[in-house]
Amino acid sequence: MGTAQEVLCRATIEYDGTDYHGFQIQVGVPTIQGVLEQALRRLTQRETRVIGAGRTDAGVHASGQVIGFRAVWKHPLADLQRALNAVLPDDIGVLDLSEALAGFHPRFSAKGRRYRYVVFNRPVRSPLMARFTGHVSEPLDVEALGEAVPYVVGRHDFAAFGTPPNGGHTVRQVHWARWRRVDEDVLHFEVEANAFLRKMVRTLVGTMLEVGKGWRTPASLGAILVSRDRSQAAPPAPACGLCLIEVLY
Amino acid sequence: MGTAQEVLCRATIEYDGTDYHGFQIQVGVPTIQGVLEQALRRLTQRETRVIGAGRTDAGVHASGQVIGFRAVWKHPLADLQRALNAVLPDDIGVLDLSEALAGFHPRFSAKGRRYRYVVFNRPVRSPLMARFTGHVSEPLDVEALGEAVPYVVGRHDFAAFGTPPNGGHTVRQVHWARWRRVDEDVLHFEVEANAFLRKMVRTLVGTMLEVGKGWRTPASLGAILVSRDRSQAAPPAPACGLCLIEVLY
Repeated sequence: MGTAQEVLCRATIEYDGTDYHGFQIQVGVPTIQGVLEQALRRLTQRETRVIGAGRTDAGVHASGQVIGFRAVWKHPLADLQRALNAVLPDDIGVLDLSEALAGFHPRFSAKGRRYRYVVFNRPVRSPLMARFTGHVSEPLDVEALGEAVPYVVGRHDFAAFGTPPNGGHTVRQVHWARWRRVDEDVLHFEVEANAFLRKMVRTLVGTMLEVGKGWRTPASLGAILVSRDRSQAAPPAPACGLCLIEVLY
Repeated sequence: MGTAQEVLCRATIEYDGTDYHGFQIQVGVPTIQGVLEQALRRLTQRETRVIGAGRTDAGVHASGQVIGFRAVWKHPLADLQRALNAVLPDDIGVLDLSEALAGFHPRFSAKGRRYRYVVFNRPVRSPLMARFTGHVSEPLDVEALGEAVPYVVGRHDFAAFGTPPNGGHTVRQVHWARWRRVDEDVLHFEVEANAFLRKMVRTLVGTMLEVGKGWRTPASLGAILVSRDRSQAAPPAPACGLCLIEVLY
């Protein structure tokens, strides 16, 4: 009820990124941002700019992406959340929505991002796991994977593992990372950093998986890092295994 | 190597049924059987009829469907499995493949089938769960769900809960069934029977979910069963939550 007023909103969103060309809006292709802005335009009858905490790449999923936008809305915000979930496609959903503190910016206010990469590790691929995991048919040495982790934790120039979104610098602070076997055939790589370069998590995973297969030593991660040479790292692991699970403020 | 000879094969297959009009071949629409027969035709250069243990409906998944077919193949069968997994789309996979005993028939030899229905139970829908679960936003009384189970276990005429595939009789033997909360937001209904009518598991689930929501009593399952009247049961739960997990021989 009440009169329409502009509210700075903060929302946590979840999406299956399979059918999208990443978060950030692009002309002519479906993107998460584009679909969210279209839904808000439909509900509020105004052009609305949506800002996301992380610019997930094409095919990458999110269970804890945080967005911010200014909406003109005269009803309770719970109604806006319900309305968004009604008009958004099944592969994008709003988990919570509230008024943000003044000055909140989803990207600049964020202190960290957490990603999870899920590896499905058995000889035969699984159609039921294919959408949300990267498949590795070779046996993986989880201990060797764990030994590779310390080389990439800390404040480093990650130029060998990715490119900055807008041509800025390539130094990032990785707070922690870990490999974990969660099931007979399933491994999780979880990593938290202040921010990530484009394709950084997938390139770290792709390179570490070569350690797990015995093709490289754990220490080679350190050598690649120091080289700052993108060609020394492995190709990025497939996007479908990656999920932005949390943004920290 | 060796000369080509016809082998009676048995295979376990897994599929994401989302984009298929069920297992059974139909003209003009994609089906699991149709895609499997096409892959075998491509690899063996012969028309091959594939028989499945369970005729899963449109949108229903399988992690343990069993199929049988006669293939002309001169290499080890492990090579045929690898070749099938290479040419099949990502949403269909062959988990194992071996020579069947003489007289094996995937459907007539089967003594039972096990299905699992996965319910995602929280107010807000989840894009990452949507493909493989049925969403229920209302709170569910798991105890009441459990109390409904005994009414449908045993040898009964299930005419109220489904239709026979080829107009046959409607008596089926449900060996056991159970509801289980496996996670804060996730419930599993698992059921084993000698065989099922079309839409029987989904109609049982749809009706029991009304018990879980408090709209019906557990005992009403017994009354519906006795009525043999399809209109007394609830509509079938969405196909995406259902998976054929095992066939018993």
